[in-house]
Amino acid sequence: RHGKADEEAQVGTVTGLAWTQVGGEILTIETLKVPGKGRIQRTGKLGEVMTESIDAAFTYVRSQAPQLGIDLKALEKTDIHIHLPEGAVPKDGPSAGIGLTTAMASLLTGIPVRADVAMTGEVTLRGRVLEIGGLKEKLLAAQRAGIRKVLIPEANRKDIAELPEKLRAGLEIIPVSHVDEVLSHALVKAPIAAKAAPGRRQGTKSAKPLVPGVGKRQAGLPPAAALNRPAQTPS
Amino acid sequence: RHGKADEEAQVGTVTGLAWTQVGGEILTIETLKVPGKGRIQRTGKLGEVMTESIDAAFTYVRSQAPQLGIDLKALEKTDIHIHLPEGAVPKDGPSAGIGLTTAMASLLTGIPVRADVAMTGEVTLRGRVLEIGGLKEKLLAAQRAGIRKVLIPEANRKDIAELPEKLRAGLEIIPVSHVDEVLSHALVKAPIAAKAAPGRRQGTKSAKPLVPGVGKRQAGLPPAAALNRPAQTPS
Amino acid sequence: RHGKADEEAQVGTVTGLAWTQVGGEILTIETLKVPGKGRIQRTGKLGEVMTESIDAAFTYVRSQAPQLGIDLKALEKTDIHIHLPEGAVPKDGPSAGIGLTTAMASLLTGIPVRADVAMTGEVTLRGRVLEIGGLKEKLLAAQRAGIRKVLIPEANRKDIAELPEKLRAGLEIIPVSHVDEVLSHALVKAPIAAKAAPGRRQGTKSAKPLVPGVGKRQAGLPPAAALNRPAQTPS
Amino acid sequence: RHGKADEEAQVGTVTGLAWTQVGGEILTIETLKVPGKGRIQRTGKLGEVMTESIDAAFTYVRSQAPQLGIDLKALEKTDIHIHLPEGAVPKDGPSAGIGLTTAMASLLTGIPVRADVAMTGEVTLRGRVLEIGGLKEKLLAAQRAGIRKVLIPEANRKDIAELPEKLRAGLEIIPVSHVDEVLSHALVKAPIAAKAAPGRRQGTKSAKPLVPGVGKRQAGLPPAAALNRPAQTPS
Amino acid sequence: RHGKADEEAQVGTVTGLAWTQVGGEILTIETLKVPGKGRIQRTGKLGEVMTESIDAAFTYVRSQAPQLGIDLKALEKTDIHIHLPEGAVPKDGPSAGIGLTTAMASLLTGIPVRADVAMTGEVTLRGRVLEIGGLKEKLLAAQRAGIRKVLIPEANRKDIAELPEKLRAGLEIIPVSHVDEVLSHALVKAPIAAKAAPGRRQGTKSAKPLVPGVGKRQAGLPPAAALNRPAQTPS
Amino acid sequence: RHGKADEEAQVGTVTGLAWTQVGGEILTIETLKVPGKGRIQRTGKLGEVMTESIDAAFTYVRSQAPQLGIDLKALEKTDIHIHLPEGAVPKDGPSAGIGLTTAMASLLTGIPVRADVAMTGEVTLRGRVLEIGGLKEKLLAAQRAGIRKVLIPEANRKDIAELPEKLRAGLEIIPVSHVDEVLSHALVKAPIAAKAAPGRRQGTKSAKPLVPGVGKRQAGLPPAAALNRPAQTPS
Ligand SMILES: [Ca+2]
Ligand SMILES: [Ca+2]
Ligand SMILES: [Ca+2]
Ligand SMILES: [Ca+2]
Ligand SMILES: [Ca+2]
Ligand SMILES: [Ca+2]
Ligand SMILES: [Ca+2]
Ligand SMILES: [Ca+2]
Ligand SMILES: [Ca+2]
Ligand SMILES: [Ca+2]
Ligand SMILES: [Ca+2]
Ligand SMILES: [Ca+2]
Repeated sequence: RHGKADEEAQVGTVTGLAWTQVGGEILTIETLKVPGKGRIQRTGKLGEVMTESIDAAFTYVRSQAPQLGIDLKALEKTDIHIHLPEGAVPKDGPSAGIGLTTAMASLLTGIPVRADVAMTGEVTLRGRVLEIGGLKEKLLAAQRAGIRKVLIPEANRKDIAELPEKLRAGLEIIPVSHVDEVLSHALVKAPIAAKAAPGRRQGTKSAKPLVPGVGKRQAGLPPAAALNRPAQTPS
Repeated sequence: RHGKADEEAQVGTVTGLAWTQVGGEILTIETLKVPGKGRIQRTGKLGEVMTESIDAAFTYVRSQAPQLGIDLKALEKTDIHIHLPEGAVPKDGPSAGIGLTTAMASLLTGIPVRADVAMTGEVTLRGRVLEIGGLKEKLLAAQRAGIRKVLIPEANRKDIAELPEKLRAGLEIIPVSHVDEVLSHALVKAPIAAKAAPGRRQGTKSAKPLVPGVGKRQAGLPPAAALNRPAQTPS
Repeated sequence: RHGKADEEAQVGTVTGLAWTQVGGEILTIETLKVPGKGRIQRTGKLGEVMTESIDAAFTYVRSQAPQLGIDLKALEKTDIHIHLPEGAVPKDGPSAGIGLTTAMASLLTGIPVRADVAMTGEVTLRGRVLEIGGLKEKLLAAQRAGIRKVLIPEANRKDIAELPEKLRAGLEIIPVSHVDEVLSHALVKAPIAAKAAPGRRQGTKSAKPLVPGVGKRQAGLPPAAALNRPAQTPS
Repeated sequence: RHGKADEEAQVGTVTGLAWTQVGGEILTIETLKVPGKGRIQRTGKLGEVMTESIDAAFTYVRSQAPQLGIDLKALEKTDIHIHLPEGAVPKDGPSAGIGLTTAMASLLTGIPVRADVAMTGEVTLRGRVLEIGGLKEKLLAAQRAGIRKVLIPEANRKDIAELPEKLRAGLEIIPVSHVDEVLSHALVKAPIAAKAAPGRRQGTKSAKPLVPGVGKRQAGLPPAAALNRPAQTPS
Repeated sequence: RHGKADEEAQVGTVTGLAWTQVGGEILTIETLKVPGKGRIQRTGKLGEVMTESIDAAFTYVRSQAPQLGIDLKALEKTDIHIHLPEGAVPKDGPSAGIGLTTAMASLLTGIPVRADVAMTGEVTLRGRVLEIGGLKEKLLAAQRAGIRKVLIPEANRKDIAELPEKLRAGLEIIPVSHVDEVLSHALVKAPIAAKAAPGRRQGTKSAKPLVPGVGKRQAGLPPAAALNRPAQTPS
Repeated sequence: RHGKADEEAQVGTVTGLAWTQVGGEILTIETLKVPGKGRIQRTGKLGEVMTESIDAAFTYVRSQAPQLGIDLKALEKTDIHIHLPEGAVPKDGPSAGIGLTTAMASLLTGIPVRADVAMTGEVTLRGRVLEIGGLKEKLLAAQRAGIRKVLIPEANRKDIAELPEKLRAGLEIIPVSHVDEVLSHALVKAPIAAKAAPGRRQGTKSAKPLVPGVGKRQAGLPPAAALNRPAQTPS
């Protein structure tokens, strides 16, 4: 059953995509929180870059605490664990960034992640999504695993034309340029901001879904609202 | 006497199975808790992957504290030690995962582990049991040690057909897909949940014992109940 | 979009310039602060020298807290994260020093950094700007990224004559010898000193822009001490 | 005088036996406790396995605190130091396990260790004694050092027949399978349990001395009592 | 401007002298203190020996707190940073010892260091100044940088005769045997002891300036006084 | 002046003896204590074995606090620094053990160490003095440095006969078997025990000086326990 995507939305679990010497692969991201002292654990034979991706994702999500409705005070008495099975397989690279950010956001808001979405993309501390490699191999792995929708970096939009027709037809491929869009697509509902959150970043561009009529997202909404509106997913 | 399974149920001790260059071997897992400050020690010349397996097992068991009736407050004043004899033999890999989780659950609930059960399987942070290697060698080692029942990953069910007839006849081989099932088989009685534990994970599939009439487990029980019902072991 | 400079002034984000085996490159510096315990995190596959540059920049900015109007007490309950995308690319060397210092000063004062300025220069603990290498390659990268104004060390003024005419015409190149000048050029407004800050260092020389008629900056903004003097920009 | 066993019983000092490329050797174990903060120091150029043996021994002894009459509260304000002279000689391996456990039990109970006893054996977290290597060489070293009685693992009983007659005649060789037996033989008197210690492990098998009429130990005593009775040493 | 000595006395900044494969060089030592928690940071790509020199210098200066008028209580709420530009150049060796000690003493007393003095010498925990290597190369670098006076170890007095005449004529070379003398020459005024400081070390020998009529220092003064008297510098 | 022994008794400073590839050498041991938090620092490019020697020496001295009159409570608010100049020379091995113990005992009691005594010997946690190597080379270095009396391990007494006559005549060579004897010879007066210190170890054998008529030490000084007995020196 491993290598297949989950069947129902879960909190803190995200389907990432990895690119290895032998092709693309599903990369499950699991997170848990338990009462503790604000520690963060990272397991799954993770390399330096992936470990740093976790740290950056955690900082980003904490920086968005007001918009996401996360209680930072409570975090000080919580231990967080991020694990990437399979434990014996070395994992590294920055492309799990948006997946790690989504898993963390889900864990800390308690909002489940859609089971039919996979994603790949480096994320920066400001939430920008950066280009990744191995797009074709990753999408093939997503398809094999029964994934319907895949979030990819806007910077990889140029690579879509080179994909086999069958792959493009079978998957909804959504380029994104900011984590805001990722969360809109991946969480089953929008987080509820703790307050008015007046100083929030504005003007993220909306994702342009590649499959016509799918995933249209209103541009220009104030971000807190954007997250509060019903998550817009393709029909 | 080493290399033989224990004769009576003990708290915090589990019989795992290892696969080395020279064949399968019994891998004893010992745990102790003493009054302390919430520290965790891991000894037995453990590699990175096995060390991370311990961390993941510990987080998983803590995340199930309500269902297992574990007092997390008391844990803060307890030191835990996990040791895998023989101390000079390097040990690594993820396949001790369910054994480590079971040992920890036994230690923290105080419920002994059945002496006639051995087990092998990677475990994820959500309690899922993943495929392992060296099944045949491990089962031979279990048989040599006088083990009667062996828990293996559901994902290894496909490998059973290739096992020698004599091995299949002499051992009750039980594929499992979640740690819930492991604990049902391994602990001498079910843990008592601290409370109603309303938000608990549901819908784990029941393990299908391979030996007819043995180990049938009611599917679909709410998990807390599942753990509370009399541990179902083969006749 | 990566490899292009930002379009609007942001808090805590600076455009640095890197020099690699394959030429010059934009080096984005991102910073965030979140409620915490005074910890500092550094990510982006940073080498020893760049890590130390961050430490020195952080100490320098803290030492200027009175002049910059930074509340050091509040810092004790703040975690700071510095990240340099792209996370898989190793980064090292001291030339990001003034960029790191500027990012930190912006983050802690809340004053945005001008989007059309890039910079390169080692910085010392006293704020002095030291010579760097790869000037031509870095300026070419800045030009490609749409940068208008570049701050370089005074000690590199000698290298400007060797630059291609086209490069010199297209960029406003400003040699600086102290971080004070860097902040005057890079922040959208001058920091407001917490108090009279009587003991502050004085007498930094003003930067003389090399390209006539470029980079005029309005004097008369209310800054502190040396920062309080009219920001001295080229005539 | 080094290389000779001690002449009188001392607290916290045990004569172990090492097996090196050049033969067997006396391995002195020294321990001290001083007022402190619950720290543990390990010196003597110890390898990973021996360091872990110390940790396991310390956990075991703490887990037996009620039976041994050790005040765990007081331990929190005590620093413990374990040193194995000669400091320049690398030492590793698990066979000092029962020696380290005995030294620690002596140190924390204040009961001296008999000067005429040496010992070798790996110990597990539950106090089980595991097989060791180099028995003949170790026993020769013990004999040279003037030792009269040597505790060895029960699992090495099979190796005794192969020992030279002269060695077997000159030493009382006592196979043991649990640390309880080790302490009975090595401490000059039995520890006094702090309380009734109702939940204590039972049913350790008694050691069978190999020299007739020597070291007979009543089997079946409740363990706390076993430790409380006068230490039974060979005539 | 780097490679030139400072023009005015500064607090916490010292001009050291380094000896590398390509000759002597100016080695600037910068220090800062900021409100903090008693931490000490050391940056500048420092090797083990130079890092230890900093630790020894810091201990020495703290041990002289009464004589120097340093408030140790306040130090517990102060972070100290020592940085040696240029950050990419590896630096090691013990000969920055007296420079580091002087920088630290200046930083913690607030007394500026004379800008026209450079120095080289290992320092011990008792303040003794030990021999260094590369004297000629270091002095040439000092001369190039416009330094007027150089403090060297008394143990290197023997090497002065071998120096080129021009170098000896252009620099005031002052052999010193104790840090007391270093501080007398380097600080612009003598520290004011916090109290009578009765138990202070006595009997340091006075430095004998090599240029006649210059730098004469009264021998035999009680050290606290020695530091309190007007700093004696050559005419 | 380095390479020469000190001329007057100092607190916390000991003259040790090292044996290197190029012969014997004086090994100065310096210690300082400053108000702090119970930290211990070790500098001088020390290897693992020498670092551990410091730890063992420190534990031993603390274990003798009652006999030596050391206030352990005050130690918790004291930082201790042990430094071995020359900082660039790697130092390792156990033979500085008694020197380190003496330096620490002097530092913590405030009793100066005689300037005309040098020493070499490994020390165990119980204060036993173990054999060392390079005796001849070390004694030659002591002689060169103007040392009059050298403490060596009793186990090296056998090596004295092989020493050149001139060396034996010029030095008082005193074999010792316990640190008690070392302190009796090296400290200028005996420590005053804090209390009756009833449980103190007794019966250390007195040192027998090998050179007749040399090394007479006045008996009758008031010491503690064994230190209280008349310092037993050779007739
Ligand atoms: Ca796989
Ligand atoms: Ca890229
Ligand atoms: Ca084995
Ligand atoms: Ca697999
Ligand atoms: Ca790039
Ligand atoms: Ca340079
Ligand atoms: Ca030996
Ligand atoms: Ca074995
Ligand atoms: Ca240079
Ligand atoms: Ca020298
Ligand atoms: Ca030397
Ligand atoms: Ca020896």
